[in-house]
Amino acid sequence: MLEQLKDQVFKANQKLVRENLVLLTWGNASAFDEKTGYLVIKPSGVPYDTMKAEDMVIVDLEGNVVEGRYKPSSDTPTHIALYKNWKNIKGVVHTHSLYATSWAQTGLDLVIQGTTHADYFYGDVPCLSLLTPQEVSDAYEHYTGMKIVSEFETKKINPLEMGACLLTGHGPFTWGETVDKAVENSMVLEAIAQMGINTLFLNPQAKLPQYILDKHYLRKHGVNAYYGQK
Amino acid sequence: MLEQLKDQVFKANQKLVRENLVLLTWGNASAFDEKTGYLVIKPSGVPYDTMKAEDMVIVDLEGNVVEGRYKPSSDTPTHIALYKNWKNIKGVVHTHSLYATSWAQTGLDLVIQGTTHADYFYGDVPCLSLLTPQEVSDAYEHYTGMKIVSEFETKKINPLEMGACLLTGHGPFTWGETVDKAVENSMVLEAIAQMGINTLFLNPQAKLPQYILDKHYLRKHGVNAYYGQK
Amino acid sequence: MLEQLKDQVFKANQKLVRENLVLLTWGNASAFDEKTGYLVIKPSGVPYDTMKAEDMVIVDLEGNVVEGRYKPSSDTPTHIALYKNWKNIKGVVHTHSLYATSWAQTGLDLVIQGTTHADYFYGDVPCLSLLTPQEVSDAYEHYTGMKIVSEFETKKINPLEMGACLLTGHGPFTWGETVDKAVENSMVLEAIAQMGINTLFLNPQAKLPQYILDKHYLRKHGVNAYYGQK
Amino acid sequence: MLEQLKDQVFKANQKLVRENLVLLTWGNASAFDEKTGYLVIKPSGVPYDTMKAEDMVIVDLEGNVVEGRYKPSSDTPTHIALYKNWKNIKGVVHTHSLYATSWAQTGLDLVIQGTTHADYFYGDVPCLSLLTPQEVSDAYEHYTGMKIVSEFETKKINPLEMGACLLTGHGPFTWGETVDKAVENSMVLEAIAQMGINTLFLNPQAKLPQYILDKHYLRKHGVNAYYGQK
Repeated sequence: MLEQLKDQVFKANQKLVRENLVLLTWGNASAFDEKTGYLVIKPSGVPYDTMKAEDMVIVDLEGNVVEGRYKPSSDTPTHIALYKNWKNIKGVVHTHSLYATSWAQTGLDLVIQGTTHADYFYGDVPCLSLLTPQEVSDAYEHYTGMKIVSEFETKKINPLEMGACLLTGHGPFTWGETVDKAVENSMVLEAIAQMGINTLFLNPQAKLPQYILDKHYLRKHGVNAYYGQK
Repeated sequence: MLEQLKDQVFKANQKLVRENLVLLTWGNASAFDEKTGYLVIKPSGVPYDTMKAEDMVIVDLEGNVVEGRYKPSSDTPTHIALYKNWKNIKGVVHTHSLYATSWAQTGLDLVIQGTTHADYFYGDVPCLSLLTPQEVSDAYEHYTGMKIVSEFETKKINPLEMGACLLTGHGPFTWGETVDKAVENSMVLEAIAQMGINTLFLNPQAKLPQYILDKHYLRKHGVNAYYGQK
Repeated sequence: MLEQLKDQVFKANQKLVRENLVLLTWGNASAFDEKTGYLVIKPSGVPYDTMKAEDMVIVDLEGNVVEGRYKPSSDTPTHIALYKNWKNIKGVVHTHSLYATSWAQTGLDLVIQGTTHADYFYGDVPCLSLLTPQEVSDAYEHYTGMKIVSEFETKKINPLEMGACLLTGHGPFTWGETVDKAVENSMVLEAIAQMGINTLFLNPQAKLPQYILDKHYLRKHGVNAYYGQK
Repeated sequence: MLEQLKDQVFKANQKLVRENLVLLTWGNASAFDEKTGYLVIKPSGVPYDTMKAEDMVIVDLEGNVVEGRYKPSSDTPTHIALYKNWKNIKGVVHTHSLYATSWAQTGLDLVIQGTTHADYFYGDVPCLSLLTPQEVSDAYEHYTGMKIVSEFETKKINPLEMGACLLTGHGPFTWGETVDKAVENSMVLEAIAQMGINTLFLNPQAKLPQYILDKHYLRKHGVNAYYGQK
């Protein structure tokens, strides 16, 4: 069942390791299948080097395992919250990648400093506030996802224009219209997080003006895009 | 004698090199065999690329070589002190890994800043004070081990909940219920040490609240753990 | 047509990836053929791992595609501006390499701090100011090139003695008498940008005196050069 | 002639590349043969990937090429000055390695902060002052070597106990009783330079006490050494 998507999710998880975004068993990637309403996600705590495509777990939007001999990622409720609330999102990735996690630990937004950032994310990457003790105790992973959804709504950020966020004291989540796009967003986020630390050290006021953000973002996205082969 | 454990210790030492935690002949990993009361440890100053499993040295808890054509690691008395005093510890690792050693050189505790840390270590990783000139001159490596044991006792830190420490001006030691777990702790310590430097630069006040530390640590450890496939 | 140059440009682009100067589809290298008056440039947004030499695009100095099934790099107008105005420049490279881009994001010149820099670039690597909103809106990539040319003219910098610049909020451009030399300049710029951050942290006043800059630069360049096998 | 030593010098130069201490054609390693009074050194500006053992150049202590089809490294007079003045030194290495060069650019000594440093270098690694314009103009590379010799004499530093120095605005030189030992010193210097930047950021006062320096250095060197298999 969903063999092709399982293979895609498996390869996305492996790519996170290859791109040095994941150490040990940390991190997880999933994809959502609109037709069945199921998601395919990495199993929890299984070593990457022995993992196979068939080990991916199929889960419904209530969190029930539909198929798979392993338990799904412990972060599955976070993925579910995103798929349930954001209809155009079909892939979600979570890592503890070094530089994005360093930023997340600070509780600070990743301010846009250059065009590398502007080519992918339309504005500062938000760092979302901590869950309350009650939320952590009641349903930590579920409320993590709900936090992302609600803060994006409050701040009027479009998840299709901002495929990433940081969670204070935790790390990054990224997403996109496919799981491959979510992985790509994780790679870009890590690069701009590393650049951001260097830049801030040299010039704490560095910030890209809005008109250049607009130019770069719209050069690659939307009806007037002219980057690439489209 | 203890062929299987020698192979395990050999592979643990090699993994330290592969994970970039060890340069040249620095670092050493050992395992303790409860049945015989012996430990198996890396030989001193032997290059990693020509080392074989059979070169591992078997030592008793008084420091006598039981088997092996090489001298054991010069840090053997430190390993012995830990095995003698901490009954559940069966693996010990010492490295001069770049970021953990950078922290150790500062004399500062590695304050808990995020969930990556909380998933493995239950609180700040302590940086233990210098030995006295007398201790250094009398039995440096022995007192290094005794220092770890006594400071953990004074500070009421459970070595099973804190599988790592930093030694001021020196570097990290890690341990665990197996030598593989001790290696894993070295890998995690290095990652959080690197993140910690970045985070401190951006926000010197960064610290994870206790209730999130509890949640993450207990999600992976103890009777209510639900991470992984158990 | 221009098969040999296409192969050279293809290999130059691949080298940027191998030297860790390029992530994903970022970056582009081109070469100018004096005889035909055409440039050969990387196609836009094509993944590096499936790219072939024959995918390189031939473009004239008005920006028209002369040969090639792909669209040329979206930065083509910048390359053209350099070739049109600087007669001895035959290769141009643009990357978002980590450290050079971090510097570019600050808007600061990369001050000369040591002989590594002096061996390649005769003075501080300039960081050029932002384009105006009007320039960005009218012809962003064209004005980017014109900005480089005009600021070098205003500041009386010889592009043959300074094969690199930084663009505020964007990243580095490098060039040279061949595309291979332009790639080499990108590698050197990245190294000195990384060193520069470390050095500034330790000593914000660090600067190489002019007489050592002269010695090192002229040891490798000009009629009295004595480095290498010439 | 001196085939074995040429092979050793060739491999030492290749190792500098493999250990990421050398980019492009930067850096050079040499060895001194006491019997003939000649040194064997890397040719100038020859790419590492096509270099062969037979390309190494044999030079006498007056700087005359004795054998070899290439010009020797432009830094040859610096190597000669060290061999002429320090009788027990048989290998010399120069690199522009990233972190050691970053330190050299600051003009600051690399203060001893930990036992990694103490295991190899007996005290702070000195950063030697700039040559005068006259020295640079007269015989830059010769005076560079003489500077090292004279500052070590003035500061009463024993080159056998301190196999490394930094040259302000330039980079590191290392040496030892063999060329392999000189390469090892370059690797260690790079590691402690990187650690030193991290440590200084976290604690600008960090410094290892003398009694621990003594313990660690003498554990590995001199008549009472007990590290390794001797």
